[in-house]
Amino acid sequence: MNELRRDPITGRWTIVFLDKTVGVSDFVSEPHMKNKEGCPFCWGHESLTPPEIIAHRKYGPENSPNWSVRVVPNKFPALRIEGELNKEGIGAFDIMNGIGAHEVIVDTPDHFRDMADLSLAETEEVVWAYVARSTDLKRDRRFKYILIFKNYGKSAGASLEHPHSQLIALPIVPKRVHEEIEGAAKYYEYKERCVFCDIARGELTEKDRIIYNGDKFIAFCPYVSRFAYEVWILPKKHMSDFAGMERDCVPCFAKAMRNSLAMIKGLLKDPSYNFIIHTSPINGHDREDYHWHVEIMPKLSKVAGFEWGSGFYINPVPPEIAAKNLLGVKVDEK
Amino acid sequence: MNELRRDPITGRWTIVFLDKTVGVSDFVSEPHMKNKEGCPFCWGHESLTPPEIIAHRKYGPENSPNWSVRVVPNKFPALRIEGELNKEGIGAFDIMNGIGAHEVIVDTPDHFRDMADLSLAETEEVVWAYVARSTDLKRDRRFKYILIFKNYGKSAGASLEHPHSQLIALPIVPKRVHEEIEGAAKYYEYKERCVFCDIARGELTEKDRIIYNGDKFIAFCPYVSRFAYEVWILPKKHMSDFAGMERDCVPCFAKAMRNSLAMIKGLLKDPSYNFIIHTSPINGHDREDYHWHVEIMPKLSKVAGFEWGSGFYINPVPPEIAAKNLLGVKVDEK
Repeated sequence: MNELRRDPITGRWTIVFLDKTVGVSDFVSEPHMKNKEGCPFCWGHESLTPPEIIAHRKYGPENSPNWSVRVVPNKFPALRIEGELNKEGIGAFDIMNGIGAHEVIVDTPDHFRDMADLSLAETEEVVWAYVARSTDLKRDRRFKYILIFKNYGKSAGASLEHPHSQLIALPIVPKRVHEEIEGAAKYYEYKERCVFCDIARGELTEKDRIIYNGDKFIAFCPYVSRFAYEVWILPKKHMSDFAGMERDCVPCFAKAMRNSLAMIKGLLKDPSYNFIIHTSPINGHDREDYHWHVEIMPKLSKVAGFEWGSGFYINPVPPEIAAKNLLGVKVDEK
Repeated sequence: MNELRRDPITGRWTIVFLDKTVGVSDFVSEPHMKNKEGCPFCWGHESLTPPEIIAHRKYGPENSPNWSVRVVPNKFPALRIEGELNKEGIGAFDIMNGIGAHEVIVDTPDHFRDMADLSLAETEEVVWAYVARSTDLKRDRRFKYILIFKNYGKSAGASLEHPHSQLIALPIVPKRVHEEIEGAAKYYEYKERCVFCDIARGELTEKDRIIYNGDKFIAFCPYVSRFAYEVWILPKKHMSDFAGMERDCVPCFAKAMRNSLAMIKGLLKDPSYNFIIHTSPINGHDREDYHWHVEIMPKLSKVAGFEWGSGFYINPVPPEIAAKNLLGVKVDEK
């Protein structure tokens, strides 16, 4: 019989297949057509993007090649940075204008190497770019939340194939974040412990869902994985704000990220995926009840009517099996 | 500038593109490969499914051909109907066994005609099957909610191409339903009016998002459409329970459904879609604050990291334009 598992943070249920699980070879990945012609994110094409916000570059002027990481405004932003925030009501509805920042972090100049293929040093540079942009945008008083995420592959919603991540600064705390924070606060109120710290302790005790155990971070397939081969990365020490990450944490975080993505890529024929950095809202002092983390969601099946209608998920691979399979992938030491 | 619109029921925000909207021809639909060989839902293959639960058949024995609508248990159910419901706690988590019903409604014996292509009389038969199965399963005291939905096309999660809908009876009220009901209850508490009745009144006054206006039901592209060409169908008279629909409502509901799907199919090159019937939980007496309805969600773009991380949606087609375009499609009178 299948098992229903409930996430203690959001109260989300997942149906985990225990009888008839799906094997690694049953997942079909879409091919990633890679063609760098006319790519606005490759060296030499800097003029195809709006002028850069920051870049790591050993020599040469702004908006020239020879960078290793480059951050630019999104050319077709969902939200625009200029203007004042206005809110108004129309009948039963509220509307507001589209104020916000929408930036693209080009992870590497190499069109053909996703984060799974980067060296640890290269991954650290990307992480530094995330931290730098977060720190800068947090100073803008119009913004309440900074969302950093990556869409890799068409079925994960990527429209450009050159490896990149995105950052969106929002004038309100979005609903999903609010739900997660509220859920974590309720748990804290009841138990006087951070729910994420409890989850990390549980995973470290049970061991069978851990895929990376560093000095500062762990990566694991969570007990209530909504998706096959879902991976979470959590700082071992309680920390609520991603941008407040201390310098000495970056190498271990970069390794947890790169290795997790490399295991997923190696095992599952380079699937599309999304990852999202979940952090606390801006102005939220350090929270005792919230813990920043990353959720990596390989796109191996479609979210269908049942999931949409119920908020339940159906996961055909128990996380215990997912972790075991991922650990079978050999990952670079560098 | 784009506009952020807030749904008054769940508090969900959608970024609606007003500057740079996406045209009808910019959407690429996946081809639906139709091959009826070995299809378990075609006439003559009745033995390939578990024995039927109900069927509309003019003559002949159970599990023989000549039916017009047939309901069977899902051969690979997410939840099973046998057994007692058990709940327990494991550390921070709750688990429960997979009790529930998972049924398939085969909409028509014709492998090649989706609900958009059925006659009104055929669609009514499907609606009757939904009502009959809901009414029967509501008697089982283990169930708290009945979810009826349809996945059409691969990218909407359909695994079999023969036109069918699904029904899942759940031992708990799912999270999404709970959220919607709670949101509607808050609105009612504040305004002493049903939020859905208010929405229907607003749409009927403004008129420019209505695509079908029958005597008992309306179909419209909601002001806060999350998806391009999203359509909602709502009874004009307040009703909280789908299965309690009166007999004289069925023809108008079937027409609203069939016509909406036919317009979407005609305009957008037969896209994949999901629809979900949103109704009140079982044992919930008639609720003043909740209103059953259908949400049709064409799968024209991918849900990506931003949507996952924030619960915001990005809709590149203002519903006012969507409605105008849909109304341009000629629909059968029968």
